[in-house]
Order: sequence, then C-alpha cells, then structure tokens
Amino acid sequence: MLIRPDNRAANQLRAISFTPGIAPHAAGSVLAAYGDTRVICAATLEEKVPTWMKQQCVKGGWLTAEYSLLPYSTLDRKQRDIVKGRLDGRTVEIQRLIGRALRAVLDLSKLDGFTLWVDCDVLQADGGTRTASISGAYVAAQLAVKKLMAAGKIKESPFTDSVGAISVGVYQDAPVLDLNYLEDKDASVDANIVMTGSGRFVEVQSAGEEATFDAAQLQTMIGLAHEGLQTIFRLQKEAIG
Amino acid sequence: MLIRPDNRAANQLRAISFTPGIAPHAAGSVLAAYGDTRVICAATLEEKVPTWMKQQCVKGGWLTAEYSLLPYSTLDRKQRDIVKGRLDGRTVEIQRLIGRALRAVLDLSKLDGFTLWVDCDVLQADGGTRTASISGAYVAAQLAVKKLMAAGKIKESPFTDSVGAISVGVYQDAPVLDLNYLEDKDASVDANIVMTGSGRFVEVQSAGEEATFDAAQLQTMIGLAHEGLQTIFRLQKEAIG
Amino acid sequence: MLIRPDNRAANQLRAISFTPGIAPHAAGSVLAAYGDTRVICAATLEEKVPTWMKQQCVKGGWLTAEYSLLPYSTLDRKQRDIVKGRLDGRTVEIQRLIGRALRAVLDLSKLDGFTLWVDCDVLQADGGTRTASISGAYVAAQLAVKKLMAAGKIKESPFTDSVGAISVGVYQDAPVLDLNYLEDKDASVDANIVMTGSGRFVEVQSAGEEATFDAAQLQTMIGLAHEGLQTIFRLQKEAIG
Amino acid sequence: MLIRPDNRAANQLRAISFTPGIAPHAAGSVLAAYGDTRVICAATLEEKVPTWMKQQCVKGGWLTAEYSLLPYSTLDRKQRDIVKGRLDGRTVEIQRLIGRALRAVLDLSKLDGFTLWVDCDVLQADGGTRTASISGAYVAAQLAVKKLMAAGKIKESPFTDSVGAISVGVYQDAPVLDLNYLEDKDASVDANIVMTGSGRFVEVQSAGEEATFDAAQLQTMIGLAHEGLQTIFRLQKEAIG
Amino acid sequence: MLIRPDNRAANQLRAISFTPGIAPHAAGSVLAAYGDTRVICAATLEEKVPTWMKQQCVKGGWLTAEYSLLPYSTLDRKQRDIVKGRLDGRTVEIQRLIGRALRAVLDLSKLDGFTLWVDCDVLQADGGTRTASISGAYVAAQLAVKKLMAAGKIKESPFTDSVGAISVGVYQDAPVLDLNYLEDKDASVDANIVMTGSGRFVEVQSAGEEATFDAAQLQTMIGLAHEGLQTIFRLQKEAIG
Amino acid sequence: MLIRPDNRAANQLRAISFTPGIAPHAAGSVLAAYGDTRVICAATLEEKVPTWMKQQCVKGGWLTAEYSLLPYSTLDRKQRDIVKGRLDGRTVEIQRLIGRALRAVLDLSKLDGFTLWVDCDVLQADGGTRTASISGAYVAAQLAVKKLMAAGKIKESPFTDSVGAISVGVYQDAPVLDLNYLEDKDASVDANIVMTGSGRFVEVQSAGEEATFDAAQLQTMIGLAHEGLQTIFRLQKEAIG
Repeated sequence: MLIRPDNRAANQLRAISFTPGIAPHAAGSVLAAYGDTRVICAATLEEKVPTWMKQQCVKGGWLTAEYSLLPYSTLDRKQRDIVKGRLDGRTVEIQRLIGRALRAVLDLSKLDGFTLWVDCDVLQADGGTRTASISGAYVAAQLAVKKLMAAGKIKESPFTDSVGAISVGVYQDAPVLDLNYLEDKDASVDANIVMTGSGRFVEVQSAGEEATFDAAQLQTMIGLAHEGLQTIFRLQKEAIG
Repeated sequence: MLIRPDNRAANQLRAISFTPGIAPHAAGSVLAAYGDTRVICAATLEEKVPTWMKQQCVKGGWLTAEYSLLPYSTLDRKQRDIVKGRLDGRTVEIQRLIGRALRAVLDLSKLDGFTLWVDCDVLQADGGTRTASISGAYVAAQLAVKKLMAAGKIKESPFTDSVGAISVGVYQDAPVLDLNYLEDKDASVDANIVMTGSGRFVEVQSAGEEATFDAAQLQTMIGLAHEGLQTIFRLQKEAIG
Repeated sequence: MLIRPDNRAANQLRAISFTPGIAPHAAGSVLAAYGDTRVICAATLEEKVPTWMKQQCVKGGWLTAEYSLLPYSTLDRKQRDIVKGRLDGRTVEIQRLIGRALRAVLDLSKLDGFTLWVDCDVLQADGGTRTASISGAYVAAQLAVKKLMAAGKIKESPFTDSVGAISVGVYQDAPVLDLNYLEDKDASVDANIVMTGSGRFVEVQSAGEEATFDAAQLQTMIGLAHEGLQTIFRLQKEAIG
Repeated sequence: MLIRPDNRAANQLRAISFTPGIAPHAAGSVLAAYGDTRVICAATLEEKVPTWMKQQCVKGGWLTAEYSLLPYSTLDRKQRDIVKGRLDGRTVEIQRLIGRALRAVLDLSKLDGFTLWVDCDVLQADGGTRTASISGAYVAAQLAVKKLMAAGKIKESPFTDSVGAISVGVYQDAPVLDLNYLEDKDASVDANIVMTGSGRFVEVQSAGEEATFDAAQLQTMIGLAHEGLQTIFRLQKEAIG
Repeated sequence: MLIRPDNRAANQLRAISFTPGIAPHAAGSVLAAYGDTRVICAATLEEKVPTWMKQQCVKGGWLTAEYSLLPYSTLDRKQRDIVKGRLDGRTVEIQRLIGRALRAVLDLSKLDGFTLWVDCDVLQADGGTRTASISGAYVAAQLAVKKLMAAGKIKESPFTDSVGAISVGVYQDAPVLDLNYLEDKDASVDANIVMTGSGRFVEVQSAGEEATFDAAQLQTMIGLAHEGLQTIFRLQKEAIG
Repeated sequence: MLIRPDNRAANQLRAISFTPGIAPHAAGSVLAAYGDTRVICAATLEEKVPTWMKQQCVKGGWLTAEYSLLPYSTLDRKQRDIVKGRLDGRTVEIQRLIGRALRAVLDLSKLDGFTLWVDCDVLQADGGTRTASISGAYVAAQLAVKKLMAAGKIKESPFTDSVGAISVGVYQDAPVLDLNYLEDKDASVDANIVMTGSGRFVEVQSAGEEATFDAAQLQTMIGLAHEGLQTIFRLQKEAIG
C-alpha cells in the first residue's frame, strides 16, 4: 500500500492558497502556495513589444514570463544566475512553459502594443514550483488586467479562459497528485499538466528520467490532474474576486 | 477532407533513412533523414564524467547531448549561437530532451567513468529536427558502443532497449504524423513522442501555442506515433547492422 | 519651512519593522520594512570559504552579501541582471557595502571554514533599500547564528556588536532623516551612515551628485543618523528575541 | 630521403574534390575534400549590410566568413565555442583569413546592399582545414552567385577572378605541399598561400612556431604552392560547371 | 609615537606632480604622480551622449570615467578585466566615484550633445590610485576643454570649480594623510575625501573593514585632508597653466 | 615619383627608440617608439604555467603576450575591450603573433614552471603598433630575464637569439618600409616581417585587402624589411645594455 511522506491520499492536493498584494508596485501580484512551496507572482505592463515582433511585423501584444529560484528557497543555497553568468536549462524550460500556458488563454490582439510581464520568484521550493508558478501567474495577470482596465490602460480583457497547472507522477509504482520535493526526487515518472478552466489541455509533459511508462499510467495521471485542477480553478477565482 | 502539403496520408511517414559513417573521426556517426530534414548525429566517448557527478559523488557514467542548427540549415540564415553569446531557449530544451531520451535506455553503471557525447547538427531543417535527432542519436550511440566494445574500451553494452521519436500534431483540425515545416508552423497542437522499442513511453510532450486540445485528440496523436515508430525502429536496426 | 512629502519632521523615521520567518528554508530570515521599502533578508550557511581565501591562505570564515532589486519592486519594471548579463555598478557598490557593514561586527575566526551568506532581495523600493538591507541583514544573520548554535554547527556567536544603517540627506536645503524615494531623487546630498550598537561608525558615505556640501551640513546629517539609529537598534533587538 | 606518412611526393597533393549540393537550403554549397579533411562550405545571401558599414557610410555590399570545427571533426572531441563562451584565437584568425581571401576577388559594389555569408564547418579535420575552406568557400560562393543571378536577385557577377589556397611547410627539413595532420603537427614551418586564378598572391602567411626559416626555404614553399594550386583551380572550375 | 614607513609626518603629502602631454592623441592628458603611484589620465571628447540620456530625454552633455589597473602596475601581475570577462567591484566603485567627482564641478548644459571621457590607467600602484586619478582627471579634462575651446568645438568652459582628492586613514591608531600601499593595507580605517577648490565637499567616504571609528577620528581625518588638498589645488593650477 | 606623407625615402625608418623603466613594478619594461607610435612593453614573471600545459603534460615554461590599444591611443577614442565584452579579431591576431615571435627565440625548457608575461599597451597609435610591440616586447623580456637572473629566480637565460619586426607595404604602387597610419590605411598590400638577429625569418605575413600582389613585389618588400631590421637590432642591443 502506498504511504506518501505527508500521509496524503494519492489524489489529494496539498494546502493551496493564493494571497494577493505581495508586491504592491506591480500591477497585480500574489503569493501562491502549494503546501510549503511559495512563489511570488507579479504582473507588470510595459508599453512596448519585443524587438522580434517589430522585426517580423507581428501585430498585437505579448506576454513574457520569467522564473527564478531565490537563493534561499532551496535547502542548500542556490547560486544566483548572474553569478554563473547564464540561466540554467531547467530555468529556461520553465519560463518558456509559463509563457506558453498564459498565452494559450490570452487574445494577444487585445494587448496591442503592450508586453505583459509575469515574474515568478520562488521564495520556498518544495516540489511543484513550475505548476504553482503557472497557477499564480494567471491570478497575478488577471489582477493586473483588472487594475489596468480600471485605469483605462487596457480597454477590454484579453483573457479568453482561465488556466492552472498541477504535477502528477509515478511514486512507488503508484500514480499520485501534486508531488512534494521528497516524492519528486524519488518519482520514476514526472508529469506536468496544464489545463484551462473549460477543461481543455494546454500542455501535457510526461517524462521518465532513466525510466519509462505505459499508456495506462499516462491515462491515470491525466485523470488525477484533471480532478485536482477543479479545486485550483475555484481558489484562483476567489483570489481574483 | 485533409490535404497535406506533400499529399501524404495522415498516418504516413516521410522518407526516412539512417546513413552510417558521415563523420569518420567520431566513434559512431549517422546522417539521419526524415524527408528533407537532415541531421548529422555523432557519438564520441570521453574518459571522464561531468564535474557535478564528482561533486555529488554520483557513480557510473553519463550521456550528454548537444544540438545545433547549422547556419545554412534554415531558409533564412540562422546566426550561430556563439555570435549571440548564448544558446536560445529552444536549443536548450531540445538538447535536454535528446539526453533524457537516450539515458532512459542506458544502464549508466556500464559506462563507469566515461561520458558518451551525442552531437546532433542539423544540415537541413524541414520540421521534426528534434525527433530525427533522437532517432539518429540512438543509431550513432549504438554504432559507437559496438566499436568501443570491439576495441575493448567498454566491456558490456550499456543499452537496455532501443529508443526513437516522432512528431505528431493537429493540422487543419486533423491529427497527423511526422509534420514537415509547412505543417508544423500552421499546426495548432505540436507533440513529440519518444518511445522505446519495447513499446513504453519515455516522453510525451504535447503543447498548444495559443491553442488547446482535448483528451480524444491526445489519444489519437499517441496512437499515430506508436504506429509510425514501428517503421523507425526497423530502419534503426538495419543501420546498426 | 520644510514640508516633507509625507509630512514627517526632519528627524522622524518612517514606520520601521523587522518580521522574522519570511523564507523558512534559510537559517535565518526577516522581512525588513522602512516605510514602503520592503526587503527580504535571508542568511544561510555554507560549509566552505571563498576560493581567494584558500589561495591567499587566509584563516577563519567569511560573510558574503548579495543584493538585488526584484523586477516588480520598482514603479517601472526593472530588467533582471541575468538578462543584461552583468550586475550594474549600483548593485555592486551596495552588496560590497552590506558585506563590509556586517563583517565589521563579526569575529570571522569564529566562523572558521564557513561562509555566511546574506541575501537581500528588494520586494518594494521606496528609498533607503541599502540601509534597510543592512539593518535587516544583521537581524537575519543573528537569527541564523542562534539557530546554528542551537544545532551545534557553530560553537560560539561570532558577533561582537550589532549594526544598523540609515540614510540622511539634504532635501530642500534642509538635512533630513530616512529619505523616501520622492525625497531621494530630489536631494542635493545623499548620505548613508552605518553604525554599531555601541555608537561607533562603520561607514560614512556622503556624496553630492552635481552638488556639494560643507562641514556643518555633514555634522548635522551625522547627528540625525545617530539619533534615528537608536530606534532601529531597539527594533532589531526585539526581532532577534 | 624524405618519406611522407602517406608516401606522397613532396610536391604531390592529396585527393582533392568539390561535391556541390551538400546543404540544399543554402544558395550555394559544396563538400570540399583535401584528402581526409572534409569541410561543408555554404553561401547564403542576406539583404542587409553590417552595422559598421552603415555607421561609417561605406557603400556597396560585404562578404563575411564564419568557420567552425564540428565537435566530432577531431580525434578528441572538440568542445563547442558556445560552451566556452568565446571563439578561440585560431578560429578568429581563420575566419578573418577566409573573408579577406574571398573579398580580394570580389567587386563589392556589385553586391550593393547585400551580405554574402560563407560558412565553413569542418566535418573531419586532417590538416589544411583553412585552405580547404577557402577553396571550397569560393566554389560555394560562385554557385550561390549563379543561382542568385538566375533568380534576378543579383544583376551582375561580383567576381573578378577565382581564388584558392593550399598549405606548404617544412617537414623533416624538406619543403612539402599540402600537409596532413601528422605532417602539420611535426612541421617546423607552416605556411598558407592564397592565390588568384590569374597567378597573383592574395596572402602569404609563413610562420615557425619555436623555429625559424630562411629566404631559400620561403622561395621553394611558394613555388610548390603555385604549382599545386593549378590543379585546385581546375577542380573548382569543374565543380562550378 | 607614530613612525610612517617612509618617515613622513602624519600631515605630510608624498611628492606630487602632474606632467601634461603623456598621450598626445587625447584632447588633454597628464601623468599624475602621488609618490610612486603613477596614473595616465586622458580626456577625449565624443560627439554623442549616452543612450540612457536620449531614452530618458535628459538634456545637456555627460562625463564618463573609466579606470583600470594596467597588468604590470601591481607587484603581482594583475589579470586584465577582459580575461576575467567582467569588471571587479572595486573598479566599478572607483570609476563611478571619479565620474561623480568631476561632474560635481561641471555645468553639463555647456557640453550639450557631447560626452567627455576621462580615462585613468594606473601605470604603477602604490596606494591612493583613486585619489590620484580624480586629481589627474581634473587636470586632463581642463587641458582638453582649453584645447577644444581654442578649436571652437566648445564655446564656453563647462567648469564651475576645480576638484581634487586625497586619502586619509587611521594607521597605528593615528590619523594620517595620503597613505601609501604599506600603510593602506594595515590601516584600520580608510577614507577618501573629494573637495572643490572653493572648499566644499563633493564626497566623504570613510570605512572601516573589520574595524570602526568614532566622531573625533572622522573630524581629524577631514581636517588633514582639507589641509593637504591646498597643495594639490596649487599643483593642478600650475599644470593647467 | 613616390612622395611619402612625411617625406621619408622608401627604405627609411621613422625615428625609433626604446626607453627602459617605464613601468617599475614590472621585472622589465620599455617604452617603444616607432615615430609617433608609442607602446608600453612590460614583462613580468609568474610562478605557474597555463592550465593546458598541465592537462597535456607539456614540460617547460611558457611565454604569453597580451596587447591592447589604450582608449586614448587612437584619434577617435577606442572603446575598451571589457565594455564590448570580447576581444576583437585584430587584437587576438596580434597577441598571438607577438607570442609566437618571442617564443621562437626562447628555449622554454629554461623557464621550467614559469610563465613570462609580456604586455604591450599602445599609448599612441600611428601605424606599426604590432611591429613596435614585438621589438619592444623583446627588450622588456630581456631586461626582465637579466633582473630575474640577478635575483637568482632564473638560472640561465632562455634566449637563443634576438627578435625584431617591421612593417612593409605597397603604397602608391611602390614598396615602402615602416608605414605610418596615413600610409597604412591607403596601402594596397600590408606585410609584417619578423626576423631574428641572426637573419632568419620567424614570420612573414603579407596580405592584400581587396587587392593582390606578385612575386617580385613580395621579394622587394622582404628586402626592405631585412635592411631596416638591422637598425632595430642595434637599438635593441643598446637599450638592453
């Protein structure tokens, strides 16, 4: 029988919360918590678009995501990226994933001429930092959009749907939901599922590092994620108000 | 009715081939072709392991993959990474993916003290460069292992299975196999499936950029990939000899 | 008559607080607030010393400080250092200042073989981020030392005194204490005073950008700082407990 | 008596060939072989000129060359430039040499507004990679010019002459032509001669690393190169067609 | 009783000189000597302003300072910055200090559209390189302004005052003036005082590394500096002519 | 008839001098002047060898050269390398050339365990900076060797010969010696000849940028250089003493 390190059932989420207002200078901000994982998510608006859009004559606006582990977020202090002089591969993957997830529920034509930045800085890392970042980034971006619409900077909301994310994996041969750090490092398969509030997938990423998985396991993991995300969508809605 | 730009059926692969010996100084090498996509894949052995393995006291060997688009592989000349001073995010993601795919079918303890490098340089890009790279990298690495075993540098083959990859996607609302560049840039969903010869998944990556997909579409895409990979496994086996 | 933007008297501090526990994975952490300026200060211990100490055969331990403005801490989003590829000059100056300030009240021989890292990440910037960082860094480092002594990792406290910092300046021709952002950007002279709890100076930095000052003004500014720091020392003591 | 490792006479070239079409996405491409040395040479056209030309108000077009050793081209795997973060000095010298050689036979005013890129990527290195690159780059550039003229993108050929290169050196006290890797690493003097089809020098570079040479030796080396280049000019002409 | 390594009195300067014309291609240049410390100071004019001035619509001109230790200026050869790939923190602080010092005596509106560069390259370092740089940079900049006015490139002198700098410190418990290297490395307090010819402070920087100081010591140090700077102002005036 | 900008005969050197002692902290130093070209050359000894020598188990010592244009050496201020973040190609070529030239007259086994650094910093550039650097670097290195032998740090001189360099070129269709900047920028062929005191070549580099040359011109240029170098060898000998 499966015993998870924190005694959760296989389909049980950790305590999840979204606390708005953590960074008042941002247009929208939230402290996203998935158990002991804490991420500062903040959205700010810039009145210009990336250079490549101008060069390639792409119309509309853009959303860019940045992700970082603060040095004291991990049990062993993590060196800052600037000290190493480059972003590590994991960080690059995560910030691209956050960006794609948010853009999938945005009508970028309604951000014409603007870049919406979403910054995700991990204050404490205990597994699932990328999924907490996506869910929190959506809340921060929605709060920013509301404030910017109230201020007349954006006319119409660019959001077409909501978006959230959760991790699933195979731990001790059993598919489980929302892995914490202890589970994550021993999992044979690690998956991240990004879905919209209307029930469609934005991204399914399932990988076995030095391990493999079969179609049945994939099916079960996707089911667990779908179920867990319903709670997250509800909590996001409450935080946005 | 679906009409693909090159008139293929939805479940039809492009012409696929693996031509060994393209880079004779490497321990193993192959020119992998998926239609007009051509990738030079080469495997070389280095008698040391990455620094992090020593620092973290990890035993065994390692496999590292590097991927690059040669400047003349694309229709518009692509600037070399060294000119920009950094790898772009897409390249980082692809070389991490190739590495994970190969390591999933390796028993690294049998490479004790060695790093097996697999280099994938795209000579011509027409969609599917990452999947052609994975399938070709496996062939190059197997050829290298055979040569290194013959030379007595490795005692026992570290391979536990074979591995191959193929792209699938949703193009004009229809799931299709092995997208070329024209299809890839218009696809609403883009997926890459990495499987072992024994029929297990190593990686499932399915993403909609500014689009979403449902569970049925995911199921169909996975089925197409599974079918197409049987041909690729056969061609790999012939190339390895 | 002087009217400060927030109606404070010339010798009046903003609301100042030190809230411990903001980053639980660190050995010690605190959220330092000087009015609307908020800095996450965290101290972590690493069981090695910098390379230069080994090369130059310097005995004892070390304390290194890092400082960063989170992108959403300023009214206009600040680009991350890693995007520009280098630390700007202001950041370099500030992290050197924080390090010197803390080391001035440490007996480094009691940290033999260890590096104490203090990280200061500005969550909201409204003037005085470097002084809030120093005062907060001292609290975080003391909390870390207490925890590490309780855990037996450090035998004896390396602290020989306490340390705090406050800004003073010449605003509308009048010397004033603890400038906020609006005052700072219009001040003709900007000074930062770092003192120990026992009343000695660690650092006096007074500079006029495109302006100058005389000996009498310097004297008054130093007096204001001395007075204001007494409150800060009391609040630090309460936070450390 | 001189015995060369591959039994060639002192004035004998290795097997030399130029095989067009290796990289079909380029405007012109060729696989240049000097014995076991293999270089992919490709020419592409970009409809803009370098920034410095605009800043300095230089009229006409430009030709830029880039050179790289693919990691598996050498007997020990060569680290990619991007991993080291910079081009090594040897690479910089070679790409400057290739560029000067080609520009010496170009009327740049006939490339007005365009940059012709020639990329030389070494697939297998066995001595003479820079001379094979120059000779191959000329063929690739001519093929590109023919195609671009046929497509109406360039009105008139910018070429005023042909250009080729060959190495000579002093090996076991004897001047020899077209050194392979074994000869190159033991040569006391290493020279590269770049000539035009009409028999004029573009570049003479003769250097002794930890050795010297006299005027007679220089004379003999130049004679050998002149003779060998006649064959290369003929093979280039055949490849261009 | 205090004995200084070179037997100077506590309030005695080293031999100080400013020799014009060291770098004839610069608009103004001087070799500044403070004892064995030698700095090449050169001022050049560029007909453009920094990008940030244009972006922030700041009117007028600018002065930028750069500082470097030549590799052979120190007793152990100092690696060039370009080899390390970045400026060290000390260099960044010093060049910011030189720039602020000079700008404090400039009316930048009279340099409209221009950047005045002052370069300070240390030929020999024996303590006080930053103060010698400031005093020398002022001379070089004045010489440049005179030459540029004579040539009609600048209409009116932008200088509003003169500026000079000197170090003071606490050495063997005694405040002393103009520390050489031996004193500097053993000083418990290190201060740099920048003043104008008219007797006002531009910058007061006083720091104890692993030590502290009191108000009386600060007062004495400032007095010593004020006295010593009178000689420096006279020597500067003679060099400018 | 040829008229050179400074009225020299075709075979006439500019005023050449070597003034020792410019950088007293270096083991050996000299200010080398070729007309208005001025280069600070300094040699310092480091008691370690480059990493690559240890990795490749190469015995003996090494000589490394570095070259830089000081920002105020050119008529338009030259940006420092560290600001651009990389060495330009020309600088890389020149420092490799200086290193090869010096090593050709050194018995590196007599520098066992040491690196001799030669730094060449151009104070004023008026053509021929690389040849002045080589000739000056030899003098600085000899002065350093004498001092290090006197101090017992080196037992035996590693020098086997002397070395000097001079430029030649084709200016207004005539071969000329020792080109200044005005001649250099209009020359159709630019050559640098490095010779030993005993009359052997170390390096012959002759290049036409967008031009070519014939065998007779090459012969004449080499003759001019040979003749001019006799004067330089004599002046070097006097400076070394």
